[in-house]
Amino acid sequence: MGIVIKKALAVLPQGADDVVQETDLYIERDRIAGIGQKPSGFQEDKVIDGTDKLVIPGLVNCHTHAYMTFMRNVADDLSFMDWLFGTIDPIEQQMTDEDAYWGANLAIIEMMKSGTTCFNDMQMNIHQTTRAVKESGMRAVISRGLVGSGSDESGRMRLQQAYEERDAAKDCDRLSFVLGPHAPYTCDEEYLKIVAAEAKKNGMGIHMHLSESVSEIEQIREKYGCSPIALADRCGLFDVPALAAHCVQIDEADMDILKAKNVSVVTNPASNMKLGNGFAPVPAMLAKGINVCLGTDGAASNNCLNMFHELSLLTLIHKGAGKTPQCVSAKEGFRIATINGARALGLEKEIGSIEVGKKADLAILDLNVPSLTPRNNLIAGLSYSANGSEVDTVIIDGCVTMEHRQILTMDEKLVYRKVQEIIERMELDKKTY
Amino acid sequence: MGIVIKKALAVLPQGADDVVQETDLYIERDRIAGIGQKPSGFQEDKVIDGTDKLVIPGLVNCHTHAYMTFMRNVADDLSFMDWLFGTIDPIEQQMTDEDAYWGANLAIIEMMKSGTTCFNDMQMNIHQTTRAVKESGMRAVISRGLVGSGSDESGRMRLQQAYEERDAAKDCDRLSFVLGPHAPYTCDEEYLKIVAAEAKKNGMGIHMHLSESVSEIEQIREKYGCSPIALADRCGLFDVPALAAHCVQIDEADMDILKAKNVSVVTNPASNMKLGNGFAPVPAMLAKGINVCLGTDGAASNNCLNMFHELSLLTLIHKGAGKTPQCVSAKEGFRIATINGARALGLEKEIGSIEVGKKADLAILDLNVPSLTPRNNLIAGLSYSANGSEVDTVIIDGCVTMEHRQILTMDEKLVYRKVQEIIERMELDKKTY
Repeated sequence: MGIVIKKALAVLPQGADDVVQETDLYIERDRIAGIGQKPSGFQEDKVIDGTDKLVIPGLVNCHTHAYMTFMRNVADDLSFMDWLFGTIDPIEQQMTDEDAYWGANLAIIEMMKSGTTCFNDMQMNIHQTTRAVKESGMRAVISRGLVGSGSDESGRMRLQQAYEERDAAKDCDRLSFVLGPHAPYTCDEEYLKIVAAEAKKNGMGIHMHLSESVSEIEQIREKYGCSPIALADRCGLFDVPALAAHCVQIDEADMDILKAKNVSVVTNPASNMKLGNGFAPVPAMLAKGINVCLGTDGAASNNCLNMFHELSLLTLIHKGAGKTPQCVSAKEGFRIATINGARALGLEKEIGSIEVGKKADLAILDLNVPSLTPRNNLIAGLSYSANGSEVDTVIIDGCVTMEHRQILTMDEKLVYRKVQEIIERMELDKKTY
Repeated sequence: MGIVIKKALAVLPQGADDVVQETDLYIERDRIAGIGQKPSGFQEDKVIDGTDKLVIPGLVNCHTHAYMTFMRNVADDLSFMDWLFGTIDPIEQQMTDEDAYWGANLAIIEMMKSGTTCFNDMQMNIHQTTRAVKESGMRAVISRGLVGSGSDESGRMRLQQAYEERDAAKDCDRLSFVLGPHAPYTCDEEYLKIVAAEAKKNGMGIHMHLSESVSEIEQIREKYGCSPIALADRCGLFDVPALAAHCVQIDEADMDILKAKNVSVVTNPASNMKLGNGFAPVPAMLAKGINVCLGTDGAASNNCLNMFHELSLLTLIHKGAGKTPQCVSAKEGFRIATINGARALGLEKEIGSIEVGKKADLAILDLNVPSLTPRNNLIAGLSYSANGSEVDTVIIDGCVTMEHRQILTMDEKLVYRKVQEIIERMELDKKTY
């Protein structure tokens, strides 16, 4: 299959910078085969007219829980621990595998329609998110959420499930797997050490919630006499490729560990604000050279999985919090939402920018919209005024998965109906707040 | 003309609360004539199928500068005074009346497409924004920006222009007018007193930037020995209906004045963050009973005029800044974006909620979208996950101005082209940052 996108504006890397240039993009099978130059022997099966269009690398959502999307709006305006243990946990007790599947489908629709082509997911029911990813044509990195203690058999059982999940998806190269120890307050030290050793043995990375709320910091300091970051480090979790989600409540010493151990940090601005956790020290992390990437978190705490919304938050809130209008520029934000995410997932040679040889994971935006008019500085437009609805067409792994805002790989209305049925069955539609 | 919207979900006021109910809405000429009950003698000229739709009162954008929309993305990542005097002012020197007109058109398209049906504008070129409002079917409150000193003839000339503008628009009842003294650092005390006296004499309200940046506070304290709020009060500006934009840098004493004088405050979260001014004390103002409403500010400092984006910022940032997840709930946010705005503009008997006898200013949202699925708590959905692109149809003053996302009253592509020509003529498309 050869696809050519003709005469489109495209965001292309140029050294450490990104530039917007008019060009033709050639896609052969799953990869970008030419930029501005037709590859020899190129077979043109499909032409996409790039007039009045902007092609960007698909956004990389580095932290979410796709299955939770059916829980949108069920638990607003609560403190973090009340939210997690008082509301979300009881819903998860009632959740079936099918519920998780339809929730993941809704997440994928929302992400694809707003230009995300890869997400990093931590889930509780195995096989359901991977099933939705396989069917939809999405790309994802999956971790089965691991909770437990060293003395507890269920913790080892969950590890076993993580491997089963990985092994069952060997036929789909859009899927990869890491281990997902949930958090230092849901895994004890001994279990964290077991997970770290398993990750090392199996050549897998880890994805973990760290330093999200003040109460987490207090609990961990009281129990272990150190910060969650220091605990994770001494358990060996940073001796493998590691991605730490949140890192809101971190100090200079924590940042030194993160930098020294080459840990990537995924910041989740909406979720951190909505749960009252505050603002992660993103400008300080960037200044230290830590690889910061961006995530939406789950729909129970955001409540949306739209990376354009998250990008606008990322590029606005730190200017406000630090009274420094120069920090986290539009261009920095765009890299955080794309190539930095790819790097955090160990996929920087495959995705995250438009380069010959990389996977064709692209979002094509319509420029005949108010939010991207005028066309003077389109990267600023992407960060500060786009809302995701400008995305017209999405290509993942060289396949067109959405065209003119219609998802070609999924039945959108069926998904909306199924999700509605779940919340009616659980009587979550009766709750107000 | 009689329009009925059949079997739609609608956000309706119920005491101090809003509820979502399925109902039929009847519109006769410019007003809502029936809710759930057909008015006697109703002539059904147009039926809108409300299946899978949500009808909300149109959002009220209480502070913007529509003409500036052609300046989107021209001045990012600058401090407030560098932004205003170093970049925006020089562009305004080159701006023609036609430029202001096309800028205002772009603003109206962006607002209408994201569900705003009324905006409060401060402009520098007279007749251009009103011309665009008249043609587009929008509703607006207009103030000609007044700058000057008591000893300066140009200040009096600008006041004269404000009256000319008002008088020239007497044929359009979607337009109303207030006086717009720009700010305490661009008007001296004597001029502010003249403007206050004129407003009182003519029965007009005022719309003014107040307490936006730290440097403003410092300048005014040094010059007058008091805060900008106290200065405005002693000049008599709060003896008429007053709307103060920003109020980021205010203290308890300022809030006491605002409350005592019944001044409404329009908060502009994106602009305040982007220019590094910080977060307005919205939860404290709400606790004091001050009427807080919401605005986008101009596209040179936001950079978008999408009130759904602004609503999500409003309901998220104060939870983050104060580490209080309970503050500025979705329901409070929605009222701030609708009825509070109507009240701030003196239009609370006409717009801001869906009630029999009020103007038919409505936005109809498509519910077959991921952001509003499931339909468990739609007001939370509006505040936390909607992005404005869900708006399918807009009715203003009883006229359908947008249907299935096509604006019926304006030539969208012509506006995009004209705006692009302006920035190319001014060579603003060459600038990077």
